[in-house]
Amino acid sequence: MMKTLRELAEHVSGKVIGDEDLQISGVAGIEEANGGEITFLSNPRYGKKVGETKASALIASQKVDGFNGSVLLTQNPYLAYAKIVGLFHKRVLPSPGIDANAVIGKGAKIGKNCSISPFVFIGEDAEIGERVVIYPFVFIGSGVKIGDDTRIYANCSIREGCTVGNRVIIHAGAVIGSDGFGFAKDGKAYYKIPQVGTVQIDEDVEIGANCTIDRAALGTTWIKRGVKIDNLVHIAHNVVVGEDTVLVAQVGISGSTRIGNNVTLAGQVGIIGHLTIGDNAMVGAKSGVAADVGAGKVVSGIPAYDHRDWLKTSMCLPNISDMRRQLRRLMQEVEALKAKAESESKRTGRP
Amino acid sequence: MMKTLRELAEHVSGKVIGDEDLQISGVAGIEEANGGEITFLSNPRYGKKVGETKASALIASQKVDGFNGSVLLTQNPYLAYAKIVGLFHKRVLPSPGIDANAVIGKGAKIGKNCSISPFVFIGEDAEIGERVVIYPFVFIGSGVKIGDDTRIYANCSIREGCTVGNRVIIHAGAVIGSDGFGFAKDGKAYYKIPQVGTVQIDEDVEIGANCTIDRAALGTTWIKRGVKIDNLVHIAHNVVVGEDTVLVAQVGISGSTRIGNNVTLAGQVGIIGHLTIGDNAMVGAKSGVAADVGAGKVVSGIPAYDHRDWLKTSMCLPNISDMRRQLRRLMQEVEALKAKAESESKRTGRP
Amino acid sequence: MMKTLRELAEHVSGKVIGDEDLQISGVAGIEEANGGEITFLSNPRYGKKVGETKASALIASQKVDGFNGSVLLTQNPYLAYAKIVGLFHKRVLPSPGIDANAVIGKGAKIGKNCSISPFVFIGEDAEIGERVVIYPFVFIGSGVKIGDDTRIYANCSIREGCTVGNRVIIHAGAVIGSDGFGFAKDGKAYYKIPQVGTVQIDEDVEIGANCTIDRAALGTTWIKRGVKIDNLVHIAHNVVVGEDTVLVAQVGISGSTRIGNNVTLAGQVGIIGHLTIGDNAMVGAKSGVAADVGAGKVVSGIPAYDHRDWLKTSMCLPNISDMRRQLRRLMQEVEALKAKAESESKRTGRP
Repeated sequence: MMKTLRELAEHVSGKVIGDEDLQISGVAGIEEANGGEITFLSNPRYGKKVGETKASALIASQKVDGFNGSVLLTQNPYLAYAKIVGLFHKRVLPSPGIDANAVIGKGAKIGKNCSISPFVFIGEDAEIGERVVIYPFVFIGSGVKIGDDTRIYANCSIREGCTVGNRVIIHAGAVIGSDGFGFAKDGKAYYKIPQVGTVQIDEDVEIGANCTIDRAALGTTWIKRGVKIDNLVHIAHNVVVGEDTVLVAQVGISGSTRIGNNVTLAGQVGIIGHLTIGDNAMVGAKSGVAADVGAGKVVSGIPAYDHRDWLKTSMCLPNISDMRRQLRRLMQEVEALKAKAESESKRTGRP
Repeated sequence: MMKTLRELAEHVSGKVIGDEDLQISGVAGIEEANGGEITFLSNPRYGKKVGETKASALIASQKVDGFNGSVLLTQNPYLAYAKIVGLFHKRVLPSPGIDANAVIGKGAKIGKNCSISPFVFIGEDAEIGERVVIYPFVFIGSGVKIGDDTRIYANCSIREGCTVGNRVIIHAGAVIGSDGFGFAKDGKAYYKIPQVGTVQIDEDVEIGANCTIDRAALGTTWIKRGVKIDNLVHIAHNVVVGEDTVLVAQVGISGSTRIGNNVTLAGQVGIIGHLTIGDNAMVGAKSGVAADVGAGKVVSGIPAYDHRDWLKTSMCLPNISDMRRQLRRLMQEVEALKAKAESESKRTGRP
Repeated sequence: MMKTLRELAEHVSGKVIGDEDLQISGVAGIEEANGGEITFLSNPRYGKKVGETKASALIASQKVDGFNGSVLLTQNPYLAYAKIVGLFHKRVLPSPGIDANAVIGKGAKIGKNCSISPFVFIGEDAEIGERVVIYPFVFIGSGVKIGDDTRIYANCSIREGCTVGNRVIIHAGAVIGSDGFGFAKDGKAYYKIPQVGTVQIDEDVEIGANCTIDRAALGTTWIKRGVKIDNLVHIAHNVVVGEDTVLVAQVGISGSTRIGNNVTLAGQVGIIGHLTIGDNAMVGAKSGVAADVGAGKVVSGIPAYDHRDWLKTSMCLPNISDMRRQLRRLMQEVEALKAKAESESKRTGRP
């Protein structure tokens, strides 16, 4: 498939500097692109590589020194790149239809133009919207509701009573609605707290492979509109995650914590239970949050504190043992000075 | 379903202060409860919210100021709450029966009143106890033994030769009996150590969603009675986990480590191999344990050390660069004092 | 099955000190072995246990004081042990054949002597090599290529277009080819970057249970020959992992990072995106790597720095609050000394 640079620019409401009729055969990374392809520059790390790319055209927010091809100007090159990739690559989805090898429970409703693969289990009274795609080995519990245009990859489990909104993508192996982790001490042993709540996933959420989102003890574990969750993330019972929040891989959020809107939790962050993380807050990778985080704050560390302080501390950490040695020498020197001053005092009789 | 407060109190061996005939329609959290419902107070964080709850009754260990409804008195409110939730919410399990869409291997034995869902695979010579519930897409390897009243959620794999006790709950996506991670260097490449042991899960264990418990290289990886494991926990080959121990989400335990009884490993803790963690020890969230931990000890940090020292260190961490600046200034000042003292010594001829 | 010690020695090109005709019934750990069994000594931690073992023979690299049985001498006892375990324990694999309960897509090719279990889904135009073993509930997407002698355990997903080499082992629940985590900001919300690349797994790779390896945004996420990956590891889009590299459990690698050959990332390590980790580098457990790591370097910490410095810092960490107290006292003492010197200066008129 070929597109002219003009067509691409129109698709993203951008502007061409150079040859509008240039035929573009595809999109590729700045290092991988060949002649005839378009690439993009959004991460400044790659700026110096522009001179070496073989791409014939470049998506950028301004003219770039060292690049001789045509440029597709746009305010948000990364967004434009995303849209142009979508032009060249249409994902092929399974054809609509309910495979004879799927098991559909009594009372379950399936909307128009769904693709229900072989080896799918849909429980009683579940409701599946329109154009939903469900891959093999997906378990949908009884009473689950799935919105329109949602896609559920292979080997996912969505347990009884949970709801999933429109245009949600759930990657392979994710588990939604597993029991929350709650036990009451009964002597030395533990007594299981029944986990009788559910999980509610709102529209436009994406959930990574092998994530686990536990059902509430009572009430609802709630993932709001537009939340993007990377792989192997754990979300405990009764957590609320606000709109457009991003949870990077291997994050863990303990029970009843509330995460605001537009928050970013970087990779491997852990947050203890019953906390509130304000809107637009950011938590640095591998941090452990042990106290509420105010709106707009940036924190890092275990336990987490102000990110700028953390950066300063980080620069000192390799030298702590030097500091201790210096401190010890200083203590000796000060002792010597004190002794000298004292003997001088004794000699002179002046304090 | 309605229950009187008297009935609830009898169910948990508690005592009513107030209206014994009060009709209770359900259980809810202190903030979510409506009139007619009962709530509970066990986490002191929520103490001040008692005045605002709409609940008609409260489970508590003593009379609570600010709450005007009836009180169900009990020594362990959290345990009483758990039992009362169980009264109101009976989990609906699949009906007994072996679905025609399940594959049952030659020589496998299945006890009375089991529920074997469609798309279950049970290997040759496996033995399944009574009243076991197995959800779709569960793989049971050959020779596996499963005890009575055990429940295995969708998409779990239990590989050949492993044993699972009575009343065990295994949440969706968990893998039991995968090969341990063992390789011998053979020049530059690695030679796989055959992992020919098994996993033994004792009674009353709960295993979270997408956990992985590796089979022993030789012998047994052993999870003892009453252990509770949260989601996405990794347990390596030949680990032993003692009775009533709690492993919070995303914990990782390396090979051959022995964890005692009643231990708590908080979220995202990692423990290196070949260690011993004593009974009743606790490890703080995100800690990395690199040495044995004695019975009853509480440790935190990477590497982990005494938890109280860790708390003190944590309070200092944001100020390390200030400490370094102060130290440098002090070094200069002491140098100046030394120089002065030395010149004084020279002048006076006194040491 | 019995083997003479001579046979075992020949199998590993070793030498017997003692009774070559000794009949050996099996292999066991140094603490678990019984009479008639052979054990091994490679981890020096267990050296002192040699005197107490009941094993009749010992694999070791030199004669060991305190052990009275026969010794199988070899330069690499751990490798010899691995090979001898393989002699005694042959893993029983499913018999060859394509089960009638498997779904094989149009145009898919399956080589000779494969074992395709019930409840396997193989997509259109997929190509499966010879002697491949695929367990139940495995999803193979359209166009996937799988090499010879590869084994895929239950509940794995390998999405469209990915390739897997010869002699690869993929443990249960692993997901290969899930979408990379890429979004462009579009106002407040996120726009999904289509992830149109693939994953390439080369020969002799082992992938742990419930791992996730994302497909590239464009191009290829590439796991090279001989890489060994433990459980619950996350590898993001466009990552390259070099030959014979070891990734221990719960490691996470962010997008576009390149890991060299023979690297070791210990458990729970995280690496941010777009970095280069040189050949033979090692990263200590739980570390967070935020900058390139040179070939052969050993680093630890969050963020990671030289491992020896990290060890020194680790020893100081429990005493930081002591250091701060000492520093404060020192500041007071120096102030007192300065004041005294100043008053002395005033008195004498000398600076």
